[in-house]
Amino acid sequence: MAKQVVAGIRVERGVRTEVQDELTVEAPLEICINGRAFSITMRTPGDDVALVKGLLFTEGVVSREGLRCDVEVAPATELPGATRASVQIPPVFVCDNLMEKRSLISTASCGLCGKQELGDIELAGDALCADRPLDANLLPQMAEAMRRDQTTFAATGGSHAAAAFTAEGELLKLCEDIGRHNAVDKVIGSLLDEGRLDDAHLLFVSGRISFEIVAKAHRAGIVFLAAVSAPSSMAIELGVRWGMTVLGFCREERATVYSHPENVRSFGSEGS
Amino acid sequence: MAKQVVAGIRVERGVRTEVQDELTVEAPLEICINGRAFSITMRTPGDDVALVKGLLFTEGVVSREGLRCDVEVAPATELPGATRASVQIPPVFVCDNLMEKRSLISTASCGLCGKQELGDIELAGDALCADRPLDANLLPQMAEAMRRDQTTFAATGGSHAAAAFTAEGELLKLCEDIGRHNAVDKVIGSLLDEGRLDDAHLLFVSGRISFEIVAKAHRAGIVFLAAVSAPSSMAIELGVRWGMTVLGFCREERATVYSHPENVRSFGSEGS
Repeated sequence: MAKQVVAGIRVERGVRTEVQDELTVEAPLEICINGRAFSITMRTPGDDVALVKGLLFTEGVVSREGLRCDVEVAPATELPGATRASVQIPPVFVCDNLMEKRSLISTASCGLCGKQELGDIELAGDALCADRPLDANLLPQMAEAMRRDQTTFAATGGSHAAAAFTAEGELLKLCEDIGRHNAVDKVIGSLLDEGRLDDAHLLFVSGRISFEIVAKAHRAGIVFLAAVSAPSSMAIELGVRWGMTVLGFCREERATVYSHPENVRSFGSEGS
Repeated sequence: MAKQVVAGIRVERGVRTEVQDELTVEAPLEICINGRAFSITMRTPGDDVALVKGLLFTEGVVSREGLRCDVEVAPATELPGATRASVQIPPVFVCDNLMEKRSLISTASCGLCGKQELGDIELAGDALCADRPLDANLLPQMAEAMRRDQTTFAATGGSHAAAAFTAEGELLKLCEDIGRHNAVDKVIGSLLDEGRLDDAHLLFVSGRISFEIVAKAHRAGIVFLAAVSAPSSMAIELGVRWGMTVLGFCREERATVYSHPENVRSFGSEGS
């Protein structure tokens, strides 16, 4: 259940009306690995299996092979509204220092938080290589496809979306969530589960791009990253470093490319 | 430095222009307590002392008395662009299980992440009591005051703001940051430092309200919480539980109150 009806009192220019508004649901999900509690994330229910797989993959907790597993999702009786997702994964596929790392990893939800020391920040990693350029002419139709499928946002005005597209501009998967990082993890986990992650050429997000969104796309091997809104300074630094093309302010007929423009085709003619 | 100029190539309706855009800076801040690394948060530089004090207070790590301390802020040489903030606090003011809690607490940055088990979620806490009602007629001017002072957002389109107001609608403090929770912590930490936290009657945020924003306002004793955009379902549940009035979609001449409307005055006349 991604939306919930809540009673409110709206006032507009002095006129008071009782309303029943749909709000985005936010509820805790506990992730257990091999019987031990690993992390909690606040998320919008729906695509929980994809979220768990995406999160464990993009945070480097479990290798791609290890995620060919079942995820058992059930209500957690200790806390009303909470959910527990349990995975059983052969230890060989789990990162070495799991229980030591588990506190760091809770970063799951926002990139760096959960990390304690500067040495925990991982900015290394190989640069990606674009096997095909991005056809910039496809951006407006991708933005439109995303907007069209944001059904939770349309109802609530309170959710983020992430969507993966092929090099031909076909929508592979769109997910919504109260958290930007969760929407990204859901998309990546879903494609991973369907064996289609390698078809993802561009990841489009409905909001801003900060550090952790670039880091997640990098781990998923997605070279092109587009956002309706602004990127942060660090998002661009990492895009430059990791061979990724970061585009911001992709709205209607416009977009700005901030890194690796050499991988973008049909990006207008030289103007003023 | 909250903004940074980055070169980009903008295309609009096929016309390509080289641009120099201002982007919101995002960079890591490590917090050390009594010589030990405690947590890292990605933040927009500026108001770092306020951020550290606000974060340690709203996350229950250090008591209010303990925060009458100096915060030493300096570049961290291990990582370019990183900063270290060090505080020395008598142990009596620090929560008992600091080093055990430190992994949980990194939640600092996003409410629940960093927490590992459902039992770690703290939904208890006394309900707040409004000593004065909110005059809803003040909302439009508060929204306007906030918008006017969002100078980083005006330049970059990529930062959140939080602002505290008195019961008379006077702006006490506004802070901006790449992270919503950081903007809130900066405002609370700043008021705490100036001994003006008890004057804060309403906290206004530029975006959405989710779980952690309500939890931080609750700890700061701020009864009224208003947002330009949507609240989450859990934000409302906690508002109801904690005696807090949560208002969403506060734009121009309208607003919707979702919890404890009995504490709002002049909230229009009964309409259709």
